[in-house]
Formats: sequence, structure tokens, C-alpha cells
Amino acid sequence: MENQVIHMSAIHAILPQLQAIYPEDRISVNRAVLEQHARDQSAHEPHLPDAVVWPLTTEEVSQTLRLAYDARIPVTPWGAGTSIEGNPIPVAGGVVLDLSRMDQILTIHDKDFQVTVQPGVLYKDMNKILARYGLFFAPDPGANASIGGMLANNAAGIRTVKYGATRDNVLALEVVLADGRVIRTGSRSVKQSAGYDLTHLFVGSEGTLGVITEATLKLAPIPAHVSAAVARFPTVADAAEAVFDIIGAGLEPAALELLDATAVKILNTDPDIPPFPEQPALFMEFASSHETALADTLDMVRELCQEHRAQGFDTGVGRQERARIWHARHHLFEAHVRYFAGQSFLVGDAAVPISHYPELIARTAALMEEMGVVGSLLGHAGDGNIHTIVFYPPENDEARQRALAFNDAFVGLALEREGTCTGEHGVGLGKRKFMAREHGLALEVMRQLKQTLDPRGILNPGKVLP
Amino acid sequence: MENQVIHMSAIHAILPQLQAIYPEDRISVNRAVLEQHARDQSAHEPHLPDAVVWPLTTEEVSQTLRLAYDARIPVTPWGAGTSIEGNPIPVAGGVVLDLSRMDQILTIHDKDFQVTVQPGVLYKDMNKILARYGLFFAPDPGANASIGGMLANNAAGIRTVKYGATRDNVLALEVVLADGRVIRTGSRSVKQSAGYDLTHLFVGSEGTLGVITEATLKLAPIPAHVSAAVARFPTVADAAEAVFDIIGAGLEPAALELLDATAVKILNTDPDIPPFPEQPALFMEFASSHETALADTLDMVRELCQEHRAQGFDTGVGRQERARIWHARHHLFEAHVRYFAGQSFLVGDAAVPISHYPELIARTAALMEEMGVVGSLLGHAGDGNIHTIVFYPPENDEARQRALAFNDAFVGLALEREGTCTGEHGVGLGKRKFMAREHGLALEVMRQLKQTLDPRGILNPGKVLP
Repeated sequence: MENQVIHMSAIHAILPQLQAIYPEDRISVNRAVLEQHARDQSAHEPHLPDAVVWPLTTEEVSQTLRLAYDARIPVTPWGAGTSIEGNPIPVAGGVVLDLSRMDQILTIHDKDFQVTVQPGVLYKDMNKILARYGLFFAPDPGANASIGGMLANNAAGIRTVKYGATRDNVLALEVVLADGRVIRTGSRSVKQSAGYDLTHLFVGSEGTLGVITEATLKLAPIPAHVSAAVARFPTVADAAEAVFDIIGAGLEPAALELLDATAVKILNTDPDIPPFPEQPALFMEFASSHETALADTLDMVRELCQEHRAQGFDTGVGRQERARIWHARHHLFEAHVRYFAGQSFLVGDAAVPISHYPELIARTAALMEEMGVVGSLLGHAGDGNIHTIVFYPPENDEARQRALAFNDAFVGLALEREGTCTGEHGVGLGKRKFMAREHGLALEVMRQLKQTLDPRGILNPGKVLP
Repeated sequence: MENQVIHMSAIHAILPQLQAIYPEDRISVNRAVLEQHARDQSAHEPHLPDAVVWPLTTEEVSQTLRLAYDARIPVTPWGAGTSIEGNPIPVAGGVVLDLSRMDQILTIHDKDFQVTVQPGVLYKDMNKILARYGLFFAPDPGANASIGGMLANNAAGIRTVKYGATRDNVLALEVVLADGRVIRTGSRSVKQSAGYDLTHLFVGSEGTLGVITEATLKLAPIPAHVSAAVARFPTVADAAEAVFDIIGAGLEPAALELLDATAVKILNTDPDIPPFPEQPALFMEFASSHETALADTLDMVRELCQEHRAQGFDTGVGRQERARIWHARHHLFEAHVRYFAGQSFLVGDAAVPISHYPELIARTAALMEEMGVVGSLLGHAGDGNIHTIVFYPPENDEARQRALAFNDAFVGLALEREGTCTGEHGVGLGKRKFMAREHGLALEVMRQLKQTLDPRGILNPGKVLP
């Protein structure tokens, strides 16, 4: 509380200047509005900002940061609030810079398979428009995230196994620095070797080094032929072994998702899809410009799955059904929250090289059982990513401690196997404690960069660095 | 000379300590050795270092940098000396850190399609060994560059259109910082969202931010089916229009090289390949896991080329002949140097979004003619990259000035078209003058990063930043 009072008085010092930048309908200190910007989709403790502003232009972002920089007021950029590691929670109060109204698609460079957008564009909305050009932005975290948020977190998703994460699909940025300076990084040329790679320094920095106000993204052509398949396995370990073989054979799935029996059970609560047997399963998609190539691929995948005791292998998945299955998969997190209504939860996110994946899956499944935690194990298996969603009664401190202990142990399994504490959710609040272990001395360099680019520590304070 | 004397005395202050680190056969102040480390393959003016050392371990690199840092002696990392923008020329003297004996392949993670290597490994040698596993490292700059040099310059080459540049194929690094601290960046997990992307900050920094002592690279499976084709066109502009259509159709060439008539003439000097008609040409390669898919692709490519007045379209290129053609293409730079023996030369390197490529090619060809410069125009057309090689008599200052003016104008054409002053050769010495124009205020941020990571300016001084 002490802290908050200090911030409140500080914000009041610049409130008149903020009000000079923003008309009445684009600045708020209203309690309900502050509460909407106090939490993301995680169970991390909410914290109120002191004010929320909605810039429309880079110039407004720049003016806001200049003001905040001079007065040493925290500024936390805000996208769609869909992250799940507390990444945009304004833990030090201050100003939330809500970029949701900077939502213009500026230029569709369809001949270059590129698009230039403002950060508030929601990727699902953008992809609907790009579909008219036969193009799409491939990273898809599921929730209708904003492009700015996806860039900030280096979001990934089910298509990453084929198309890479957000990091791999960005060419150029406009960034406002902590002191209000506006820079442009990269270029629309796909080949770039002119100096330091600033673009990739800002991508994944979770708004702690600068505020992205414009981005040029790489797009992919929507593939001509797509087939899906679902395979069921006796154990998650069998499924993970099949994943390893599919990737090792160079079969290049466009999606390769692993779900344990609980996750399948909850997927089945979606009324729009046929019920699947409640068994560990792989949901797969393959894409090609040629139908015959696709059929050959599916035959090989079936064989590999059967070698790992697959009990069912269904390729009779039509286009519409496929869309419904992926829609359900995308909303599986929310489906879990509904299924375990009233429970608190903790979302895990770790990744390892694919050769360690089968063991990580087997050990994690065993760990869940040993520790008696309740939840699901699922993952973007094709790129070695694994998620856990663990639920516990909100008032049961022992259960909460057990969930936290499980998550620590789970991340430990990944770090022991040349992995990372976060494959796609970012560090936010929850993963700071693993940063020293994962990065060692490199963490010092990260601190030096933060100090260089944000010497007053006003940008999304309390995140990424422990 | 004044400067050099100062350095000589400075180096003498640490020479005994260097000699304590390095046995006699791994340290030299011998004139012939210094001269070997005074120039790369460019025409940039050579400059002698004061000493050359050959470390075998990260610890030796670290000790050397600690010494140099304390005594403020310049240190320039050295790979294979194959760069062509003056990138490793020790313009401030000091110590050249020749990494060619740190040439071990440390681990082949074949199941993960990864390899961990020391920086002195030559990529062609490495690929011969990886071929036993059906794998290869895709970026191929042509000359037998070292992996460390390729990482430092973010090298690319003819496969980049399909597989990306070096930057896109690196997962983790070990880096020695200016003060001798050793850090590890990234991880072997293909998905990474844990903090700032240090890996991509060091890749392409040309040894000015740290010395890469180990790298984990992404590998690709050697494709099962490959076809090549050669198409001839009346003008380079026609060829470039065909490139634009091939890329726009999503046909994903594995290589797509444009050569003007002069370049074809010089390619023909290679005795191992059949002579090609001396006309602008596209040399193309397509790869697939399926033969039928490949045949369909080639049919479409032929049609697109014919729409742009292709006068010949030869797909009867067998595997051995294909290898010989790419070998000749890889050595086309050296072939030029032989062909114009005794002449000085200037190599151009710019890149633009593919939609601007036809116009850039047409304008560059016209510019060569207008300005009366002698040489070739060629490029990794599929990714919008274009090279010029311009020759002039070494004693003719007017011709030299004309070559320089042409290069400035050529880079200007690219920068006016959302392009970059270097697609793959790096900034080195020759491109520093374009950095402010290309990057604007972002150049200030690059300077801040340099100041943070190399506060005493000992790492490869005089490069990248103007």
C-alpha cells in the first residue's frame, strides 16, 4: 500500500500533462478500467495501474514515454491481456499504455508475403483479412492475442513446428524507447546483414526494453492441400516416442499436438467436435502443394505411430471438422478453466530438444501422479514444447504449495535436459526465479542491456529479470 | 605509422603474458604471418596486426581478452579470412585471435538435426561429415568460410532462399565478452522465450561485441529429390521479372541465381561445366521429398519463365552436372578475379523486398552502362539480393573513383527501395558510410550496445559503426 500511495501521488504530478495528450475518452483513472488492466489470463496476483491511456499514434506513445521518463513513472504496454505468465500486470502501478486502438493494418505487401501493422491488431482478425490474398501469419498462440503482445512475448503455438515462432516471422519494427526516442529496426528486405540485430532484441523482451508501435511480418501462403490425422496411444510416453520418430523422419508436420487422457476428456466438452476416446492422443496436420505427396506422408506417419502401439489412426478428418478440432484445441485452456470452475490453476510451459522429449513427457506424467496434482499434460509436441495445467482449491494452501512445487520440479526436468523454462509464454512474473539457473552469467548481460535501454527502469518493471 | 608504433609498444607490454598463455607454435609476430592476417578477400587496404595467436580453448580466448582489456589492446577475431568487406582487417593493429585451430565438431545431435561446433570449423568440411547422417548446414557463402566467420557476418548464399541465412540456423552460442567473461546464450531447445535474445545480438555483430567460441546450429535433412533448371532471357530485367513470379507463386526454389551475360561468360571459363550461351540466365534448383511434386513444380516454373521471354529452358541437368554448376557458381568470385587478373575490384551487395527486385536489377544494369563501369551483375535473386563485381585498373584513380561512385549509387537504389546496404557481406569497412542513412536513430542504439558490451572499444575496432 505504501508503494501504491507513492505512485498515486507521482501519477498525479503528470496527470494534467497526460490529459493534454489524450482526450477524455482515451485516458482513464476509473476503478473498473484499472481493474480490467490489473490482470492477464494467469492466476498471478492482480495489481492496479494508476491510469490507463489509449494512444492512437506513435507520437502519442513517444510523448507519454518522455513524460513518464522525466517523472520516473512506470509504463506497462498492454496488448489484449491474453498472456498467462503475468507479463503485462502493472506490478509497480503507473501508466498502462493500452495499444488496442492502434489496430490498423497499414500495408499488405501481398507480393512480398509481408504485412505492416500496428501493435493492437488481433492476429485472428488480421488472418481473416489476409486470407483474401491466400496468405496468413503463421504463429498462433490460440487466444486472440494482439500482434504487439505476440511480438513482446515471442508467442508461438500449434503452427510453430513448421513455420517458426513470432521471432522467426518478423522483419522490421518501429520501437519507442524508454526516453521517447523513436527508432526503426530491420527492413523489408528478407536478407539483412547491416549491423546489430535490434529487431530480435526487442522481440521477446516483454515490453521491458521499448514499446513496439509498428511491425512488418512475414506471411506464408495458405497451403493448397492439408490433411489431418488423430492417433490414440496407450500412454503419453508412447505418443511422445511417435512424435520423435515423425520429426526425425523429416516429415514436417504443420501441427503435431500431444494431449493426455484428461486433456482429451476436456477437449470433448466442446459441443462442436465428435467425442474422442479418452486416451493419450496426437492431433496432427500435414500440408503440401501436392495431394500425392500428402498421401505418402500420411502412410509413413501411420506406420510410425503403429510402431509405437497406436490403437487408432484416423485420417478421415474433413476440412470443416479439422477447423473445429483446432478451434477446440485453441480454446482448450479456457475449456480447462470452465471444467475446473472455481479452482485456482497454474500453467506450465517448458521445452527441450526433441530427443529429450519422450523422457520429459514420461517423467512429467510420473511426477504428476507421484505428487498427486490434478490437471492435464499437453503440448506442441513437434517442437519439444510441453504444457501442464494444474488445478487446486483456492483456499487450500497445501494444495497450492504442491502445485508450485510440481511446477518447479517440472521446469527442473526440462532444464536438466538442455531445455528452457519457457518455450512460448515468456518469463513475466512466474519464470523469473529460473532465469539465473537457465542463463548463468548471461543474465548479467541481460541486466546490462536493460540498464542501457531503460536506465530509469520505467518499462514494465518487475518482469523478465529476477 | 605513428599509430602503429604506439600499438607496437603497447603490445610489447603484454607480449610476455601472451607468451605465457600460448606455446611458441601458437603465437607469432613474424612479418609473413602478420601479412597473412592483414587482408581478407576484398580490395580494402591491408593493415598489419602486431601479433597473431591461435587459441585452442575458450579459456585461452578468455585469458587473452582479459589481458587485452586491461591493457586496452585491440583484438580482432579471425576465421578463414574469406570475407569481402574488410570485416577482419585489424585496422588498429593489436592482436589477431586466429580461431582456425578451434576446429572441432563437438557433438552431432543427429536426432535433433543439430550440431555443436567450435568456430574454426570450415562449413564445407563439416557438411562432408554431416552428409553421413543425411544432414547439412544450409547457409553456404561459397568460399570455404569458417562457422565463426559465418556467424559473425550472418553469411548467407544460394540456399538462403529456402533455408534462411546463418542467423536463422543458430540456436545457442558460447561467447567470450570483451573483459573475458564467458557466457552461454540460447539453448538447444528450438523454442525459446526466456529473456532477451542474446544469440541474435552476437550473430552478425562481426566480432565487435564478443568472440563466439562455440555454436549449436540447426541442420536440414538432405532432400530426397532435387531438380535443376537453367533458363536464358533476352535481358536481366526479364530474368528478374521471372524470379518475382516464381517466388510469388510460392514455388519455394532451393536456389535461384541470376547471372548477367558477363557473369555467364566468366562462369564458362570453368572447364568442368558445359558452356552456356552468353545471355542473362537463371540457375534454379528445386527440392522435394516427392518426385511427382518436383515435376509439377518444374512445369510451372517453365511456364512462368516463358511468359517472360525465356529463350531456353533446360531441365536436363543431372546430379553430377548440377554439382559442377553450383561449384562453378560458388567460385564465380574467384573466377572473376582470375579473368580480370591484375585489375582492382569492388564487390557490391545490396538487397530489397522481392517486389522491388525487377526494378532494382533493371536500374542497376542501366547504371553500369551509363557510368561505363566494367564487370558483372549477379545475385541470389530468390531473396532479393544482388551483387555487382566491378573492375578497374589499379593505377587509374579516375576509374577507381567511378567504381566507388557506381557502388554508392547502386546502394542508393536499394536504400530508396526499402532495402539494405548489405544482404550478406556485412558492414565491415566498406558499408559503414551507409549505416546512418539506413538506420537513422537506431544507429545510436547500436552505439549504446557497443559501449555497453565493449566499453573500451577493443573488439575489432573500426568496423560496423561509422
